Amino acid sequence: MSFVLPIRVYWEDTDAGGIVFYANYLKFMERARTEWLRAAGIEQRRLHQNSGGLFVVSETTLKYHRPAHLDDELVVTADLQQMGVASMTIAQSVRLKSAQNDGAPTPGPMPLLCEGTIRIGWVDAATLRPARMPAHISGTLERFARSTSQPLTP
Amino acid sequence: MSFVLPIRVYWEDTDAGGIVFYANYLKFMERARTEWLRAAGIEQRRLHQNSGGLFVVSETTLKYHRPAHLDDELVVTADLQQMGVASMTIAQSVRLKSAQNDGAPTPGPMPLLCEGTIRIGWVDAATLRPARMPAHISGTLERFARSTSQPLTP
Amino acid sequence: MSFVLPIRVYWEDTDAGGIVFYANYLKFMERARTEWLRAAGIEQRRLHQNSGGLFVVSETTLKYHRPAHLDDELVVTADLQQMGVASMTIAQSVRLKSAQNDGAPTPGPMPLLCEGTIRIGWVDAATLRPARMPAHISGTLERFARSTSQPLTP
Amino acid sequence: MSFVLPIRVYWEDTDAGGIVFYANYLKFMERARTEWLRAAGIEQRRLHQNSGGLFVVSETTLKYHRPAHLDDELVVTADLQQMGVASMTIAQSVRLKSAQNDGAPTPGPMPLLCEGTIRIGWVDAATLRPARMPAHISGTLERFARSTSQPLTP
Repeated sequence: MSFVLPIRVYWEDTDAGGIVFYANYLKFMERARTEWLRAAGIEQRRLHQNSGGLFVVSETTLKYHRPAHLDDELVVTADLQQMGVASMTIAQSVRLKSAQNDGAPTPGPMPLLCEGTIRIGWVDAATLRPARMPAHISGTLERFARSTSQPLTP
Repeated sequence: MSFVLPIRVYWEDTDAGGIVFYANYLKFMERARTEWLRAAGIEQRRLHQNSGGLFVVSETTLKYHRPAHLDDELVVTADLQQMGVASMTIAQSVRLKSAQNDGAPTPGPMPLLCEGTIRIGWVDAATLRPARMPAHISGTLERFARSTSQPLTP
Repeated sequence: MSFVLPIRVYWEDTDAGGIVFYANYLKFMERARTEWLRAAGIEQRRLHQNSGGLFVVSETTLKYHRPAHLDDELVVTADLQQMGVASMTIAQSVRLKSAQNDGAPTPGPMPLLCEGTIRIGWVDAATLRPARMPAHISGTLERFARSTSQPLTP
Repeated sequence: MSFVLPIRVYWEDTDAGGIVFYANYLKFMERARTEWLRAAGIEQRRLHQNSGGLFVVSETTLKYHRPAHLDDELVVTADLQQMGVASMTIAQSVRLKSAQNDGAPTPGPMPLLCEGTIRIGWVDAATLRPARMPAHISGTLERFARSTSQPLTP
């Protein structure tokens, strides 16, 4: 079971094509990763103040399948795909929960709008150079990922 | 009682001063106005499709009192201040619910970060020229404003 | 004679109304103020590193007269209106140089799209509290404002 | 020889890490693609009005090598990598022309900050469904790409 964040589309997210501006899916995915970290007990600002390190995005790969529109209700997922000593990879998706042009929830499985893979490196905040991720951070995230991906019923 | 929307501060909202970029308070206030309209039963996209008109911002006045930071939890208010035939004025504020550097909710009244007045005009969507707001829209908003501003107990 | 920065409208600047998203005029005006400072010899990042202070926006008042569209060419002005000991006020405007739907420069005076007044405070970068602006900064800006506003011919 | 657009880093582009927010490189690359199209004689807004179609981004792959900072001067390139019947692929890079912390142009080759591949589809503007790119568009872009990539001297 993926970590899920619901997101509403506002005017600020759209462009003159009448749809969500593609770069903004990176923002939606970042919000979901931030809440995923928070759900695992990790506040990035405090982490930065306590550890002197921070997460930075080092690679993004996104595919856009269908557009989202103003007032649409989206769900964004975040799943830990791989954990390394200085970086991790998160798989993410954005789906349409309910299109607001007709006011009805989308029937059936929620259509996939965008999917992507985000690679995050751990860096020293002063030098912005790659560094070894503190073991308690990577450990916490791996445990959290396992716990949330367990089947809910046996 | 004001209409209130909680908003979390993400990386996308901040700038190199370490605080929320001032232009983004306009986005926060717009999200609150959009949810205020939705709470009153008005979906902007459907409204546009059905009426051929849309709301546009014609004037903004903002004062910035204190900065917000990454991970802060804010509350944004929206109150109808004045309703005219082709425009309306909304009073808005952004307050700090809980600062995330120490993880504790802010004690006492929530500090005021930013306050503003937003004037919204109704325009014909094709020409973008000012037009008379449909009576059911202004009526709905005035009734909704009165109902939400009534004292909760007599 | 005002300080002037030309700006092109890109997809990122627009919204689903087909026009420039109103909050983005604050970005356009900030770019013009930054280049105005640079023209006066002030680089904000170096200033911050050398002085321990930085400029923050404390008040914005904007009026929107006409919309801008994708591919439009705008000109943004910045004029020092008032200089105080801890703050200054800048008057700014955004005008349409040439609309790109027909590819021709707008004939006659350039239409006013947006005008505003931005109040900027000087703060200590560590505490973000108001502070007295270094005299060489305010002096430089006042001299620069006078020199650029002098009539070019007698 | 690549198509090149110079871009200055403003406050709006940065985040609380003190560097350019990674999603904004997609904006920088879009500006360069837009100017590349314009240099080839293609105005997207007019194209949309005349053809009923528009370009949409269908895939992005970015690698982030080094951060950019406030006031930095960047150069962004755009090169046609592949042209298909309904889509094209553009290779792009962002390099540091001059770091503004010391005011001096970066000596030697300009450091690579970010590189990416952007796949662009042609869609019908009304349905947003993939469509065959008008032959004069793809032809113009291929000729323009060949002409700009020819060695300037024999």
